[in-house]
Amino acid sequence: MAAKWAQKTIVLPPHKRGCHLVTSKILKEIESDLSGFKCGLAHFFLQHTSASLTVNENYDSDVQHDTETFLNRIVPEGRSAPWKHTMEGPDDMPAHIKSSMFGCSLMIPITNGQLNLGTWQGIWFCEHRDHASSRTIVVTMNGV
Amino acid sequence: MAAKWAQKTIVLPPHKRGCHLVTSKILKEIESDLSGFKCGLAHFFLQHTSASLTVNENYDSDVQHDTETFLNRIVPEGRSAPWKHTMEGPDDMPAHIKSSMFGCSLMIPITNGQLNLGTWQGIWFCEHRDHASSRTIVVTMNGV
Amino acid sequence: MAAKWAQKTIVLPPHKRGCHLVTSKILKEIESDLSGFKCGLAHFFLQHTSASLTVNENYDSDVQHDTETFLNRIVPEGRSAPWKHTMEGPDDMPAHIKSSMFGCSLMIPITNGQLNLGTWQGIWFCEHRDHASSRTIVVTMNGV
Repeated sequence: MAAKWAQKTIVLPPHKRGCHLVTSKILKEIESDLSGFKCGLAHFFLQHTSASLTVNENYDSDVQHDTETFLNRIVPEGRSAPWKHTMEGPDDMPAHIKSSMFGCSLMIPITNGQLNLGTWQGIWFCEHRDHASSRTIVVTMNGV
Repeated sequence: MAAKWAQKTIVLPPHKRGCHLVTSKILKEIESDLSGFKCGLAHFFLQHTSASLTVNENYDSDVQHDTETFLNRIVPEGRSAPWKHTMEGPDDMPAHIKSSMFGCSLMIPITNGQLNLGTWQGIWFCEHRDHASSRTIVVTMNGV
Repeated sequence: MAAKWAQKTIVLPPHKRGCHLVTSKILKEIESDLSGFKCGLAHFFLQHTSASLTVNENYDSDVQHDTETFLNRIVPEGRSAPWKHTMEGPDDMPAHIKSSMFGCSLMIPITNGQLNLGTWQGIWFCEHRDHASSRTIVVTMNGV
């Protein structure tokens, strides 16, 4: 059985700063490809350095809110911040740090044509800038 | 040479809160599959949002202890915590945050039938809840 | 079209503590392999527990400097630190924690023979020890 590859680009419209559950948006774009894989892996790569992708809770949106609260507490912003890189605004350097903390890519197993997420897992897109544009994700699927 | 795929589910029994070295437990479950790959990749996907997987030191267990100390220092818990999501207990929201900090998946190269870890590297399972149940990992192996 | 695999080891010379942009160094080592893949994935696995790999800004080196500042602020080191694991020096336990925060592996899509990074993205190697030796990265490429 020959391995198959599929690669496509998804553009997320601008999101406000914070953590957003985007599982269904992403599935809508890749469902027809996914259904062709009995067993495989799906890779999601965000082509930006001031936003991130992570897997977390898909039910209570307070978890998204609290995670944003945490990120803002842990990464100083504004007057109290020690950053040299300030030319793109006070929210930019904190955004770079948050991007490396959560990471810009995810790998999720494919089983029987579907992402094999746990019951409570969803894909989060975390926007770390105050006024961001649209964001691009390169999705690569591989399997049999 | 046709690429091969193998996918299986590992169930870890309940672990107490903290970081645990689980390399040998995991290897015992996948060794017979691994041995069939000369070159490839092994993906480990934890299907939960309040625990995590990471690669770290395999020798001195104090490193595991100190990492748990760090996580508890950096993520507020209990009265001092600003969380809205508290209905599943004071340890739940901190657990979600720690899960996104370390991540729920690992990809490790396979070389000559074995995980190609560095000399001092091991697979850590980090349980972030106080009283957790068993945890499921989906392992996907691909290679030639 | 049969899937191809390539795996090779890259040795980075000793770097000083901090975040370093290494995209071009790494590309020089893998470019001839990369060019053979129209669509695929490239995996970078650092075989160490006191350094890390992350994707971040490729333009202003102040971002690297500020990220190092952040890591040193968030992870206590020296007298104020609560670590039990101190036998390898005051910078060792902080290095282990930073390694798990940023992670030791990256997966980047390959498109038309090149790493499909965003315009501002580069590969960072972050050295968390004060006096490190050379560091090894196992690169695995797979695709068609």
